[in-house]
Parts: sequence; structure tokens; C-alpha cells
Amino acid sequence: MSEQAPNTTSALAIICGAGTLPFALADAASKRGRRVVLFALRGWADPQRVAAYPHHWTWMGQLDRFMQIAAEEGCRDVAFIGSVTRPSLWTIRPDLRVLRLMPQLIRIFRGGDDHLQSGIGRLFEQHGFRLVGPKEIAPELIMPLGPLGSCLPSEQDRADIALGLALLNATSPFDIGQAVVVANNHVLAVEGPEGTDRTLARVAELRRNGRFRSSSGAGVLIKAAKVGQDQRIDLPTIGPRTIEGAAAAGLAGVAVVAGSTIVAEPELIAATADRAKLFVTGVEASGVSVP
Amino acid sequence: MSEQAPNTTSALAIICGAGTLPFALADAASKRGRRVVLFALRGWADPQRVAAYPHHWTWMGQLDRFMQIAAEEGCRDVAFIGSVTRPSLWTIRPDLRVLRLMPQLIRIFRGGDDHLQSGIGRLFEQHGFRLVGPKEIAPELIMPLGPLGSCLPSEQDRADIALGLALLNATSPFDIGQAVVVANNHVLAVEGPEGTDRTLARVAELRRNGRFRSSSGAGVLIKAAKVGQDQRIDLPTIGPRTIEGAAAAGLAGVAVVAGSTIVAEPELIAATADRAKLFVTGVEASGVSVP
Repeated sequence: MSEQAPNTTSALAIICGAGTLPFALADAASKRGRRVVLFALRGWADPQRVAAYPHHWTWMGQLDRFMQIAAEEGCRDVAFIGSVTRPSLWTIRPDLRVLRLMPQLIRIFRGGDDHLQSGIGRLFEQHGFRLVGPKEIAPELIMPLGPLGSCLPSEQDRADIALGLALLNATSPFDIGQAVVVANNHVLAVEGPEGTDRTLARVAELRRNGRFRSSSGAGVLIKAAKVGQDQRIDLPTIGPRTIEGAAAAGLAGVAVVAGSTIVAEPELIAATADRAKLFVTGVEASGVSVP
Repeated sequence: MSEQAPNTTSALAIICGAGTLPFALADAASKRGRRVVLFALRGWADPQRVAAYPHHWTWMGQLDRFMQIAAEEGCRDVAFIGSVTRPSLWTIRPDLRVLRLMPQLIRIFRGGDDHLQSGIGRLFEQHGFRLVGPKEIAPELIMPLGPLGSCLPSEQDRADIALGLALLNATSPFDIGQAVVVANNHVLAVEGPEGTDRTLARVAELRRNGRFRSSSGAGVLIKAAKVGQDQRIDLPTIGPRTIEGAAAAGLAGVAVVAGSTIVAEPELIAATADRAKLFVTGVEASGVSVP
């Protein structure tokens, strides 16, 4: 199944959570001539798509197994990508090494997402792997500065974006969501563990029941990485579904922080946004420059 | 209908929004021997309950009419109570005075809730009325320090309360909701314009779909007034329904800031909380003292 050209760097182990991002990352690495081995997490990774790549199925918690196979496959770099919401105990099968690490793992799981991420990063590095992120592997998956489609934010949209970035900056130490919705200087939603899609659905509902009154085409979804977030493990992400959700919520557009947001299918996103007459733009985290 | 004993102070005009609070306030003022006149907002106030008090129905925006009747009724003090979510244009009937005030009103409505409130306060005072709040009229409707029922917060609950208060303090300048839900040091929800009931419903859903895994009886709803909020017009409120929502979300309890939260039916809340084995406690805004 693996017919990539030989390359000088080591193979890349991709630990795959849910969604399409793991495959976008695998494709991008393969295009660069790098051999890729997927470690598909049972309960999360998409079996149909996994089948198209060199892969090994694994339970979360099988660290001994991962390390043994990764060594046999010649992987030193490890990427961890795709969503894994707080795992259920039933999808974790701790092996001996993990059991020995239990005190450390309990500390990791006790905190919020940030703790979980930095804890996982440290864990792999303690065992001789190098944790790499999408920025290093495939910069083309990272949102650039400026608009993706042909629509541009208005003056009011730019004010909403600045307010949203300031709010995300204020909530960042509290290890919560990476997205807010602001319309006409008014905060409509702060994302929690429910994720961006449900946050947008909430805004659509606020419109339906009259709690947010405005003509369609007002308001912006703003996403930003948390300060201090391990950007190798968890970057904010937008996809065509994000644009569709923003359109259904009657928003004017979507603004994400350039350089630290994954945008796996930029052409498809631009086309979706143009069709819905929404802007999608990469902005500076400081909020100073809003193209 | 008005059979209160005569009193030396002027009559109290209560502009009534939705919910039961206007009547709790009217009853509390009447008990003190003060004459009360309700100005029931069409589209918001409950007609069946309004009928039991001396009252006048009015559309939002009928400022001339309000001022004329309030003067005839001998009212100088005005209280504004009950929920009025951002009003629809159809429930506003601007009279001449309001039309002359349009530039000021547009500025008021353009901002968030805080602007709306302080703007309304200034408007009445510019016209010779004194805006009074529930704290002055009926301190018995204000949450005291300490527990209402017989359950007490655990050590973990107290940590969650402190985190919640710190988060509310951080989001306060952004003029958003007055409530958050925190469980085991993890922020589960930040309230937006949807209100507390729907925020609690969201947490119940996070539990159902496994995004928040914990035995029932973990997590706290924390409510606090926004910094700089006009406490005469809009204080956070809890009622029996808040407790029921917290119970349905599997929380351990509810913490509100003592001295600046309305609790219209403390005995009923205590009984509801005891039955559901939830704590309900008044805490200091600083988060230092969590009884």
C-alpha cells in the first residue's frame, strides 16, 4: 500500500483522531515524499479513509504497542491530529507502560484541555519521540493572512472581529473554547466544549427566537488559538462545514488567526464562502490588522 | 383595588417586564405600606398577575403617557423590573417625546445590554424621576451570604466557584452573560444572550452526549453581576427553575454573589434545592469567602 518514493528523513507516525484532518496531513506529507504510517485510534478514526493508507489500529492507551510498531516502522516524528473529545473509559486500553505512568496521566486528565495537550506532548518526548505539528509538516494547511474568497469584512465586521479577539484573549487563561460570535459590538456566543458547529447553531437559534434581531449578514465567527496552547497538537480548525454553519446563523463572515489555524481545504472553503456571500479572512492575533 | 394603608412617601411606579419578579417587588413594597402602581409593558408583563394590582398598560416607548400618568398617580420613584429581552420593533410605540430623544435612543440600543440599561436609567432621571432598585425597595429579595438550603459546597465545588468568579470577572468588560458553569476545574459553558435556563440545558446535553463525563453531582452554576452594571435595573436572578435546571444538568449546586443577586422566593428555592440535593449559596464577589 505504501508506494511513496524513498526519502532521507524518517517516516512520520500520525496518530489519527476523528474527522478528515489526519488524511489531509498524511496527503501533504506524502506529497513531500515522506513515508507516512497512520496509528488509527479505535472509536475515533474513520475506518474507510484509514484503509487507504499504511496503518495500524490501536486503542488509546496502548503506548507500548505504539512505541514498538513506530520503532519497527522507522518513525521518530509523531503527529497527533483529528478531534478526540475527552475519551470515554471504554475507548482506553491502558498497557503496562501506561499503567506505570498512571499518576502522571491522572494529573494530565484532571485539568482542562490545555493540561491534556501539553501532558500528551511531554509523554511522547519522554519516550524519545519528536512531537511535530501541522505547521512544520504542511504549512499549506495553515490559514494565511487576508481573505480566502472574494467577500471582504465591512467596517462594522472589523470592529466585531477586534472585540472578539479581545474577548478570546481575556478568556484564554481559563482554558475554554477558541471561538466567539460577535455581531454589531454585541457578544452572541462563547464556545464551550460543545464545539464550533453547535455554537453556530445556538446563534441561528438566537435569531429564530428573536433574541438577536438584525438583518442577515451581520456578525462574525472569530476563532483563535489559546495563549500557550501546544500548537503541535491542537490548532483551531475551519472547514466547509464551519462556513455553512456561519451562513445558517446569518453571519457576515468568519475570521481566524492567520498562521495558527488549520484550513484543510482552502479552495473548497473559498467556494463555499463565495456562494453564501460570506467573507473568510485570516487576521493577526493582536487584532491590529484586519484585512 | 388599592387598599394599602396611607403612607408618607410617594407612590412607587413599577415598570413591569416579563416573569414573576415585578409582583414580588410590588408585594414587598406594599407590605412596607407603600402605594404601588404597575406600568405593565405590553408584550412582556403577565396580564393575569397584573390584574391584581393598580395598573396601567403601556407600550414600550410611550414616555409622554408614562410621565403624565405617573405624575397624576403621585409617583416620583420608578423601578424597572422583569425581563425584557431586546425588544422587537413591533412592541415599541414611540410617542413624540421619544421621537425627539431618538438620537440618544439609537446610541443606547447600539451597544450591548450595559448601554441599554444605563441609557434607560439616565433617560428617567433626565425627566425628573428617581430610579430605584430592588436593593433599596426590598432588601429581603436580595441573596444573603451563605447557604439557603441544607447542602454545602465541597472543596472541589469551592475551587470551581473561585474559577467561575474569576472567569466572570474577566468577561465582564465584554458585556456578556452573567453566568458560567464550571465542573472539576473545567469550564463547561459561558452564558450568552440565550439566558441561564438554556445554558444549563446545554450542560445537560454535554453530559448526555458524553462531552462532559462525571458522576452526577459535579459542577457549579456561578452567577455574578457585571462590573459597572446598573444594579437598579438589572441584577442576576435565581428562582426555583434555576435550581431545577441545575439539577437536570447534574450539577452539585449554584453559587451567586451575595448582596447583588435577586432571589425572589428563598424558601421555595431552599426546598427545591434540598429535594434535589443541591447547594445554593451566596458568595463574596471576590471569591475569597465561599461558605
